[in-house]
Amino acid sequence: MPDPTDPVALTADLIRCPSVTPEEGGALVLLQRVLEGAGFTCTRVDRGGVANLYARWGTAGNKRAFGFNGHTDVVPVGNVAAWTVDPFGGEIRDGRVWGRGACDMKSGVAAFVAAAVDFVRATPPDGAIILAITGDEEGESIDGTTALLDWMAEQGERMSVCLVGEPTCPDVMGEMIKIGRRGSMTANFTVTGKQGHSAYPHRALNPMPAMARLMDRLASHELDQGTDHFDPSTLAITTIDTGNPANNVIPAQTRGTVNIRFNDLHTGDSLTDWLRAQAAGVAAEMGVAIDVAVKVSGSAFLTPPGELSALVSRAVAAETGVTPALSTTGGTSDARFVKDHCPVVEFGLVGRSMHQVDEYAEVADIHALKAVYSRVLLEYFA
Amino acid sequence: MPDPTDPVALTADLIRCPSVTPEEGGALVLLQRVLEGAGFTCTRVDRGGVANLYARWGTAGNKRAFGFNGHTDVVPVGNVAAWTVDPFGGEIRDGRVWGRGACDMKSGVAAFVAAAVDFVRATPPDGAIILAITGDEEGESIDGTTALLDWMAEQGERMSVCLVGEPTCPDVMGEMIKIGRRGSMTANFTVTGKQGHSAYPHRALNPMPAMARLMDRLASHELDQGTDHFDPSTLAITTIDTGNPANNVIPAQTRGTVNIRFNDLHTGDSLTDWLRAQAAGVAAEMGVAIDVAVKVSGSAFLTPPGELSALVSRAVAAETGVTPALSTTGGTSDARFVKDHCPVVEFGLVGRSMHQVDEYAEVADIHALKAVYSRVLLEYFA
Repeated sequence: MPDPTDPVALTADLIRCPSVTPEEGGALVLLQRVLEGAGFTCTRVDRGGVANLYARWGTAGNKRAFGFNGHTDVVPVGNVAAWTVDPFGGEIRDGRVWGRGACDMKSGVAAFVAAAVDFVRATPPDGAIILAITGDEEGESIDGTTALLDWMAEQGERMSVCLVGEPTCPDVMGEMIKIGRRGSMTANFTVTGKQGHSAYPHRALNPMPAMARLMDRLASHELDQGTDHFDPSTLAITTIDTGNPANNVIPAQTRGTVNIRFNDLHTGDSLTDWLRAQAAGVAAEMGVAIDVAVKVSGSAFLTPPGELSALVSRAVAAETGVTPALSTTGGTSDARFVKDHCPVVEFGLVGRSMHQVDEYAEVADIHALKAVYSRVLLEYFA
Repeated sequence: MPDPTDPVALTADLIRCPSVTPEEGGALVLLQRVLEGAGFTCTRVDRGGVANLYARWGTAGNKRAFGFNGHTDVVPVGNVAAWTVDPFGGEIRDGRVWGRGACDMKSGVAAFVAAAVDFVRATPPDGAIILAITGDEEGESIDGTTALLDWMAEQGERMSVCLVGEPTCPDVMGEMIKIGRRGSMTANFTVTGKQGHSAYPHRALNPMPAMARLMDRLASHELDQGTDHFDPSTLAITTIDTGNPANNVIPAQTRGTVNIRFNDLHTGDSLTDWLRAQAAGVAAEMGVAIDVAVKVSGSAFLTPPGELSALVSRAVAAETGVTPALSTTGGTSDARFVKDHCPVVEFGLVGRSMHQVDEYAEVADIHALKAVYSRVLLEYFA
């Protein structure tokens, strides 16, 4: 039985479980064993071929339930020949733990498990601690944290607040807490005209000028100037492709794509409406047909600065000496699901090596992370 | 020895010479034989592996020399299985002569050869008739009519006026004389920025908005409103290609192409200057680099309506009953070289089947074309 209160050893043990999404790889089985050994009630909430673990200390119905959320699944190794360590070896060397998931985010799970076990042993709280750990964050994320939250709703289980243990610090341990994320969406435009000869444009209907005008308008538009907590929303044209090799031919069709990262002044629906209106305007001006296909991959969300972020900020400053920024930058995480359940913030390690070859976490940082989580629990239940 | 005054038989004889560019195929050898038999002085003006034939009736130094220009080379057969006749059979059936070059333009050459031979036999003119016939019009056109004109300049030979026998009528025999052509050019733009992640556009430099803006400006600009003899110049965006399949990636580079057909209010140089200035403006606004590569494939030219076009118009109307339009539409022809030598117009058959499978010419139209050319010679030397 591994020592559940040593977050570095536990990180290494978890790395040795090859839990590439959607494989459980032994990681959740290991965690269930150590958590049950420490008095947690564990339930496997598997769905759609994905393994998830719900662990609770304290009886249901407690008013105050502090939640942690994280994942044990990892992205693939990629080119294994490029690694200088065994990706699933969990080697500890030169002050670092090495391997796939060392940073993202077996260390984070290990740190909150270690902090929670320590805490309930030393100061059994008047409340509950809930660990919602998924095996499907790096994949489709359909049957992961969502499955845990669905199951909790059915059972009447509820976290009062939640801290997600994802890596959040760009360069220095302690420098950033995430209190929300921008939304993300992609729109594909297909402009259709009528093919013809370049020498006789009046007999053709060139879709290219409409594409150019639409894209110029979209890229020139200022979506907003940002908010107190969000950077300005951005729109990037990522590609325009026509594939017409003949200079004397006007093409029939062209395709273009934009990607939008948006703050909470917008929704996927409001931006979809705007994109369709812009396309319809250009289509009417130019006499072409413009098809718009939109995929919204995440909505913007924000847990406004308040008790929870203040609590975590104080703990980070006390344990690392760094006053963290409250940020909404970066890509998606499962916080986008948790935000519909309870207030949620994210704090974890420096994320620099995530998804890369020779992924690692600093041993000192893992200890600091456990210390931050321990202090958060102590203050929360004080 | 074929009868050089029967333009239909001569067309069929020429079709039986497989003179796909740059092959001479026996076509110029045949013409030299019949023309020398009729008293023409012939010179082969071969250059760069291409055969050309210069034929003259009348001594050098005559003030009035009427020129005809045409070509015996033809485009390839293409998918021979799609033909219902032998492409090199010269079959005469259903009132048509069939085969590659029947329309473009062995019939035109046969018609002016027949008219010239008839004319010098019946009414030896006080002047000269010059036939400048090339084997390189459908190819690179570097060593064809240009070689003939270069050689004539060296020899002090000169056409006073020139009639090019290319097919010029869109649908009905006699409906169109060409007195000039628009110019043609292609510009390739490469916009270079800096690759990055769609979520962090401020760390990248997206070349796409600059491409969209440049193309919108170019396509929106009215180059001119046309002239008395030319349609308005046109600019067609023919393609934009980026090849970036990743929605979350801002590409480093994108390429776009425009094709311009321009009248004599512009030159290749003036338009190149304009394109470069537009690109430089957008590059400065957007902070990207824009490379511009221009290829001018033909300049605009015009033989203003005057004696020559009036002469040909009268002959066409008299022989066909149709009053021809004076046009500058369509693609390039060797008239673009001749225009630097002497006034030049073009008149020939209906061009509908040119370059196609089962190419043909109407027997009646070939006879009418010879009659037009004969009447032109008669009036010119009257």
